[in-house]
Amino acid sequence: MADELHDTGGKVRLHVEAALSDGARVVLEDAQAHYLLHVMRAKTGARVSLFNGRDGEWLARVAETAKRSCTLVGERQTRAQDATPDVWLCFAPVKKTPADYVVQKATELGVRALQPVFTRRTIVTRINEERMKANAIEAAEQSERLTVPEIREAVTLDKLLRAWPRERSVLFCDEGGDAQPIAKAAAKIDTNSIAILTGPEGGFDPAERDAIRSQSFVVPVTLGPRILRADTAALASLAIWQALRGDS
Amino acid sequence: MADELHDTGGKVRLHVEAALSDGARVVLEDAQAHYLLHVMRAKTGARVSLFNGRDGEWLARVAETAKRSCTLVGERQTRAQDATPDVWLCFAPVKKTPADYVVQKATELGVRALQPVFTRRTIVTRINEERMKANAIEAAEQSERLTVPEIREAVTLDKLLRAWPRERSVLFCDEGGDAQPIAKAAAKIDTNSIAILTGPEGGFDPAERDAIRSQSFVVPVTLGPRILRADTAALASLAIWQALRGDS
Repeated sequence: MADELHDTGGKVRLHVEAALSDGARVVLEDAQAHYLLHVMRAKTGARVSLFNGRDGEWLARVAETAKRSCTLVGERQTRAQDATPDVWLCFAPVKKTPADYVVQKATELGVRALQPVFTRRTIVTRINEERMKANAIEAAEQSERLTVPEIREAVTLDKLLRAWPRERSVLFCDEGGDAQPIAKAAAKIDTNSIAILTGPEGGFDPAERDAIRSQSFVVPVTLGPRILRADTAALASLAIWQALRGDS
Repeated sequence: MADELHDTGGKVRLHVEAALSDGARVVLEDAQAHYLLHVMRAKTGARVSLFNGRDGEWLARVAETAKRSCTLVGERQTRAQDATPDVWLCFAPVKKTPADYVVQKATELGVRALQPVFTRRTIVTRINEERMKANAIEAAEQSERLTVPEIREAVTLDKLLRAWPRERSVLFCDEGGDAQPIAKAAAKIDTNSIAILTGPEGGFDPAERDAIRSQSFVVPVTLGPRILRADTAALASLAIWQALRGDS
């Protein structure tokens, strides 16, 4: 397997915090060292790909291994850092498996930030941010992203709206009758800095919906005649935005 | 709960095979009768919504109940039958949970037919068509669709290509370098009858990819710079097509 890692020139792809450059030494510990040394069975000399969200992607070589850690040395940059489309996803947290799924898929679809939002009908009361972060890192590693989406601290809908950066448009996935088809709305928005906002299972309550729709930065959109689950609406909106205005 | 069912004028929504009309009698048995009578606790007089994929949506009243069955009588049509966009999804089957998810999400996104395809790198060797059908029905009931997508018998990729109706375009989710961005490709396709084709985890093998790309009806498309999982690619493509050319 060490040979295979070596031969494929870095099929294993890991997100690290350390700076990456020619000759930079990166020490992996704990889960990452375990994965590389004991799951992938990398030996000294094996090559892996590293990214940190700032310095692009680097091929690095395993220089030293110990029982619980491993040192890599940067060899050459294989991709320059690129810009992640400036799309946030603000979503009412859902139960564990769908939440994992939303984080994973939104990361693959290139979201820049994930913002859990508590609403009146949100059933989930605790967010496992560490779990969200681990899911986001894994999906970023596998999808060849050069960044990991930011996982924001959960806030209430009121707080989210009060503190909103007003120059950022919000595509609000609305079940109401007068929302515009999303493709039409996306074509008209005059900024590439947006957020997608989706509700909990059961939707926003009427007062929340009014509060959202009264904001100047909100554009209510519809995804068509069918009622989508909250997670489907979030991912469909993200895919559509990326295809029309993002980098797909 | 019977009152609630009654008051909401048909919040329970069931797919049936029987013809629906004013005064039509529809007998529910087994799982549907159990669900309606024992889970939702419907009593005589309760109203539910029914659809069969042909006669639109009907409000029906529970007329008689027995221990294991229940008879409903059609009262009035609440929605006329509409046309489902003519989009098929041809996908290499994936393991159980993602497969459930693909069927559920594709149904919500309005797919007309689901076609499992065996490829050289497909790891799954058996398809549970009954399970797929049950997932599709449940998602159709919950998403307010008036149809249930057709679940096709699994075929090999060779057979699929040989028997392909040539007037139907295939959006082929391709990892290759020269594929067009999906939004651009979707705008140019001169038919609304299409299929989306996605590969297994690990992709099509090179010979399969060549065979697919050599077909005149195939349009290779890309979903952007990130590598998507097979199920993400399928659902993103479907969402984008529906927004641009379907009914979203």
